Amino acid sequence: MRAALGPAFFTKLAAIVSAQHVKIDDAVRVAYGADALKRGRQPDAVVLPANTEEVAAVVRLCGRHRIPIVPRGAGTGYTGGAVPTHGGVVISLERLNRILEIDEANLVAVVEPHVVTGALQAAVEKVGLFYPPDPASLNESVIGGNVAECAGGPRAFKYGTTKQYVLGLEVVLPTGEVVRTGGKVVKNVVGYDLTHLFVGSEGTLGIITRIILRLVPRPPVQATLRATFRDVEAAVQAVINIIRARVVPAAVELIDGDSLEAVAQYLQVRSLAPGGTGAMLLLEVDGVPPAVAEEATRVESACAEAGATEVLRAGDEAERQELWRVRRELSRSLKMIAPLKYNHDVVVPKGRIPSLFALVHRLREEYRLRIPCFGHAGDGNIHVNIMVDPNDAAEIARAHEAERALFEGVVALEGSISGEHGIGFAKAPFVPLELTAETIALMKRLKRAFDPDDILNPGKIFP
Amino acid sequence: MRAALGPAFFTKLAAIVSAQHVKIDDAVRVAYGADALKRGRQPDAVVLPANTEEVAAVVRLCGRHRIPIVPRGAGTGYTGGAVPTHGGVVISLERLNRILEIDEANLVAVVEPHVVTGALQAAVEKVGLFYPPDPASLNESVIGGNVAECAGGPRAFKYGTTKQYVLGLEVVLPTGEVVRTGGKVVKNVVGYDLTHLFVGSEGTLGIITRIILRLVPRPPVQATLRATFRDVEAAVQAVINIIRARVVPAAVELIDGDSLEAVAQYLQVRSLAPGGTGAMLLLEVDGVPPAVAEEATRVESACAEAGATEVLRAGDEAERQELWRVRRELSRSLKMIAPLKYNHDVVVPKGRIPSLFALVHRLREEYRLRIPCFGHAGDGNIHVNIMVDPNDAAEIARAHEAERALFEGVVALEGSISGEHGIGFAKAPFVPLELTAETIALMKRLKRAFDPDDILNPGKIFP
Repeated sequence: MRAALGPAFFTKLAAIVSAQHVKIDDAVRVAYGADALKRGRQPDAVVLPANTEEVAAVVRLCGRHRIPIVPRGAGTGYTGGAVPTHGGVVISLERLNRILEIDEANLVAVVEPHVVTGALQAAVEKVGLFYPPDPASLNESVIGGNVAECAGGPRAFKYGTTKQYVLGLEVVLPTGEVVRTGGKVVKNVVGYDLTHLFVGSEGTLGIITRIILRLVPRPPVQATLRATFRDVEAAVQAVINIIRARVVPAAVELIDGDSLEAVAQYLQVRSLAPGGTGAMLLLEVDGVPPAVAEEATRVESACAEAGATEVLRAGDEAERQELWRVRRELSRSLKMIAPLKYNHDVVVPKGRIPSLFALVHRLREEYRLRIPCFGHAGDGNIHVNIMVDPNDAAEIARAHEAERALFEGVVALEGSISGEHGIGFAKAPFVPLELTAETIALMKRLKRAFDPDDILNPGKIFP
Repeated sequence: MRAALGPAFFTKLAAIVSAQHVKIDDAVRVAYGADALKRGRQPDAVVLPANTEEVAAVVRLCGRHRIPIVPRGAGTGYTGGAVPTHGGVVISLERLNRILEIDEANLVAVVEPHVVTGALQAAVEKVGLFYPPDPASLNESVIGGNVAECAGGPRAFKYGTTKQYVLGLEVVLPTGEVVRTGGKVVKNVVGYDLTHLFVGSEGTLGIITRIILRLVPRPPVQATLRATFRDVEAAVQAVINIIRARVVPAAVELIDGDSLEAVAQYLQVRSLAPGGTGAMLLLEVDGVPPAVAEEATRVESACAEAGATEVLRAGDEAERQELWRVRRELSRSLKMIAPLKYNHDVVVPKGRIPSLFALVHRLREEYRLRIPCFGHAGDGNIHVNIMVDPNDAAEIARAHEAERALFEGVVALEGSISGEHGIGFAKAPFVPLELTAETIALMKRLKRAFDPDDILNPGKIFP
């Protein structure tokens, strides 16, 4: 296979996308050989097509030579989805970066894959509309990658994940054919729902070149609250009380004591919360003003009933940003604990979050590791961060044992080993913990129906 | 194939489900040989398994003998999805009819397929929760059928269709294997999204035996409004004004003049609306009381600005039911026009509803047919009812020509030939109007990956 990747092949690539958009120098190959996971193999070449036709032509060329293809967005993923496992050609979608249409009457946006998610949000908010999915990476990650991975974020509890907003796609199949799925209409039941099969398929079934997104009206106001608790159990009780009070907050973020300490250290303040705080909730409700005021009061009561040690409500935008600051600085702050982070986005039914924290507590003791946790308590999606020193081989070995124990425990709690990061190659060995052999076999048959020669993003998802 | 369906085979079926749950008498075969479409072929046998294991055993037995299998819910579909095209065995899920769990803390219900949709709604509303999808058939149709067809309804504009509420499934594959997809968590990105591939697959990929549904808090109050207009254009302008005012009503139902006349005739009243009414909107907003009051006022202004001739708001539950009565009696009333109805659930982007009505107007003239229309204006999903006398062969021939012209026109308007009824066998010949040959070929490869011998619900979806 490798033999085909010589100068003659690069010339053929250049004939499609022009020579300047075929990169084979080492610096580029290193850059496109990793994502946020910081592992993987370098591609032999990186190509930057200008449009769907060029993507399709590159796919057909690679297909004829059986050369692996890896589609790539912004490379912010945590599981190696956009990184080769077998070399080959990375197709970077970075030149397909236009917002093609914001259709206010039909509440729809049509975009190319390499539009930065935050930029799309800003563009639609300018006309009073709203694109809710808000992965933490939203200022760097792009819509195409969000769709390929089915990105989530804090707002998923109220608004759903990326999946809920994709109405239609243009996709280049591994055969080089171009198909269009769905459309500008919310309802369409003609044939199989290919649209939602491509969402979250991690670039293994097709390369997304155009996306039709559903928009909703922008909620006019928000109320942001912070509640502190002695322990995680009390914080989860508050979440359950909120649901019992039939309030659906736009965000229900949970931060544990270890994470809070790391942020305090990072921001060089003595403490971010009252003494004895073992867990913090950051809560936001949104909507029309009278409803928001009423719901915020119900959230305050729900927290108080669960034994909150303090409940604050932001009085203005500056105070709101101050409350969110802790959440935003979390990822950076964890580097104060250790330089390397194994960040796992596990999910359990939300009533079982205390069991998940009990499990993490056991792992901390048993494997002598620091494991700060935070995440989206509303949907039970908790980021469990196993922190390690990359130069300490023994610690790394213990971390890998803890990882497996974590995934086994999560599955036993009727949860899932990935809520929003996907599988890529990093989590592929653990898939059989969650899916049966029959299910994996079915998914492999499905992959084969799309990609008989296994040239598109090989080595991903399947163990 | 037929030869296998003799007494020896029926004995084997009886060994799985017991003799009393294998029906081969003519009355039963006639009853299970039709749905709301009133066409199709009779099965050779109807079996009523008691549980997943029995469903799987029946599937394996039929598979060994290559006998077609048709899964069936309540048989309320309009496209023949639950009716054989090649004889064989109907597997009726009617004994799998339990609500297994309503989990208030996790906002989840676990049900068997043959729970009547309206009964599930009543059960969850009793504890302050809400299952929004509301197909017109909700008092007869069952959740399993709703999932297999991805049923919609008036509330889809605000709340989405059935798809948005399915979190996980247990499915018997055509191979007789049992797989479980998704789970009790809202976020799960482990492998391909099989759950949403089964939703809307019309019983061609697997037989659904258990469903995990997402619930939301029940909106505490509603405001229901009725606005009348001189013509459909003005009504659609009102819908666009409502969207511009950033209100998302729970229902936006449009009823045209012909439909209103039929209801008036059926109810034996002189008129249901002010003279000169060419279109009516039934609107409902829901949520917490202060927000609902504010939104209802914005809806009234939006209608007035579009030139509404009258706007009424229900003052109490009795008045609310009175306003909804017209919509509820529509289907029955159309029988006043002609005994046979070709009911097509086409969709266009909502800004193009006036073009759709212009098209229907042309069809009325050109083919000399009565075609009353009504439907879900919020999502552009309009029920176009071609009314015919079943004894008038010439009229039926004209109706079929009009059907094809309608579908061609809808596709030209960037719409879809089916928004909520599915394809079954009735619309299969028209699928190539909407999907390209490449897309159909891909869907067929996908079908083959699930069902290599084409034994599950053959003759459906594909032309």
